[in-house]
Amino acid sequence: MPRYKLTIEYDGTNFVGWQRQDNGLSIQGAIESAAKGYCQIDALVQGAGRTDSGVHSLGQVAHVDLPRHDPPDIVAKALNAHLRPHPIVVVKAELVGDDFHARFSAIERGYEYRIQNRRARPALEMNRAWWVSARLDVDAMHRAAQCLVGRHDFSTFRAAVCQSSSPVKTLTEISVARHEDFVVLTTKARSFLHHQVRNIVGTLKLVGEGKWREDDVPKALAACDRTAGGPTAPSHGLYLTHVRYPDA
Amino acid sequence: MPRYKLTIEYDGTNFVGWQRQDNGLSIQGAIESAAKGYCQIDALVQGAGRTDSGVHSLGQVAHVDLPRHDPPDIVAKALNAHLRPHPIVVVKAELVGDDFHARFSAIERGYEYRIQNRRARPALEMNRAWWVSARLDVDAMHRAAQCLVGRHDFSTFRAAVCQSSSPVKTLTEISVARHEDFVVLTTKARSFLHHQVRNIVGTLKLVGEGKWREDDVPKALAACDRTAGGPTAPSHGLYLTHVRYPDA
Repeated sequence: MPRYKLTIEYDGTNFVGWQRQDNGLSIQGAIESAAKGYCQIDALVQGAGRTDSGVHSLGQVAHVDLPRHDPPDIVAKALNAHLRPHPIVVVKAELVGDDFHARFSAIERGYEYRIQNRRARPALEMNRAWWVSARLDVDAMHRAAQCLVGRHDFSTFRAAVCQSSSPVKTLTEISVARHEDFVVLTTKARSFLHHQVRNIVGTLKLVGEGKWREDDVPKALAACDRTAGGPTAPSHGLYLTHVRYPDA
Repeated sequence: MPRYKLTIEYDGTNFVGWQRQDNGLSIQGAIESAAKGYCQIDALVQGAGRTDSGVHSLGQVAHVDLPRHDPPDIVAKALNAHLRPHPIVVVKAELVGDDFHARFSAIERGYEYRIQNRRARPALEMNRAWWVSARLDVDAMHRAAQCLVGRHDFSTFRAAVCQSSSPVKTLTEISVARHEDFVVLTTKARSFLHHQVRNIVGTLKLVGEGKWREDDVPKALAACDRTAGGPTAPSHGLYLTHVRYPDA
């Protein structure tokens, strides 16, 4: 069967997360149902990253084997027709080889975290950004974040339930910038620990508020202990922006 | 009673529009209910523009007289507390004189119209942008729009139900630009006719698709006849961005 690489955008608000679960509708489950509607088979849709409930995607990638030799644009169109009315869309479908695996072939994942930083709570960005009313010192947050770049034991920013075999990850980039009322953190790595980005954001927010000093972040990292880090930022500010593969 | 000027952001998706109506919840009605919850009076909230159902706002302005002498920030906070969980937020409250009228004192209104121009339907921008799948020629749309700048009889772009005393309006600015997958039209005038922006967008889209030539737009304008214009673009791509007053 031909294998298709799917690039997927979604609003994660009303889903239990990427992964199929018994307690509600998942993004993966919705796409698998669409594949069944299109091809009448029980296809497995393998995603590059298991986003949590409430987390959004601009560029999640998944692969699926389908018993159809339709042009990729037709595959995308058919899946999107079956995905209605969910806020899940296959932005692009591509024919790939059997050796392509959305999760294991990935060489980079990018995330963005959006904070709406103003006195009034979000209206248009409700469920799309974390509301922080106290003015954040974005430059301090950016500087404090730089100690996280490189290969480190990220146990301080790791969820207790994380299934990764090792707490050591290599962060290739992290930056924090202000765009009017928004404070946006962007970061890239080959892979991330469970809750790593949200735990980093929750910690950097303390720096932005002046509750932590900038050099408290390297100390927290060095502690290799989750209790040394700040709280977990809420899921609804997080966006999986892209997943990169060797050939692309 | 002190008069407060309110700057209001909202997602118009699930409302019947700005204006109070019998057939469902309006933005105006929701804010009046919040004023009642805060001050226990039946206050009249007067808006600068009556946005249709589905139209969003980044900067609608309204005024309201309240029997409270609280600092404006407290007024905003109290109204926002009572507006929960609606996606309506008072971004700013200001104390103004009795001669301030949100509608009649306004000297400029600004609108933005967002088109998501890509093959796949919107997911994150569902209900927030008009989906047009065929690639639009944005430069042609921008050039064709320029004939609308200035004082004209806009009958071609006027809804049949429009209550304005005259079809003559002065458009001070209109531009169309691409931002990645989005085509954004921005326009400003002292005031607009009912559906004027949406009818202009529906017409310029025909130019963008190559179905109309650029010089068909001045001809349609000159016809002063609604049947000479293009179709009405859907409400959910429209945003009231700001309302300007003499002192601000």
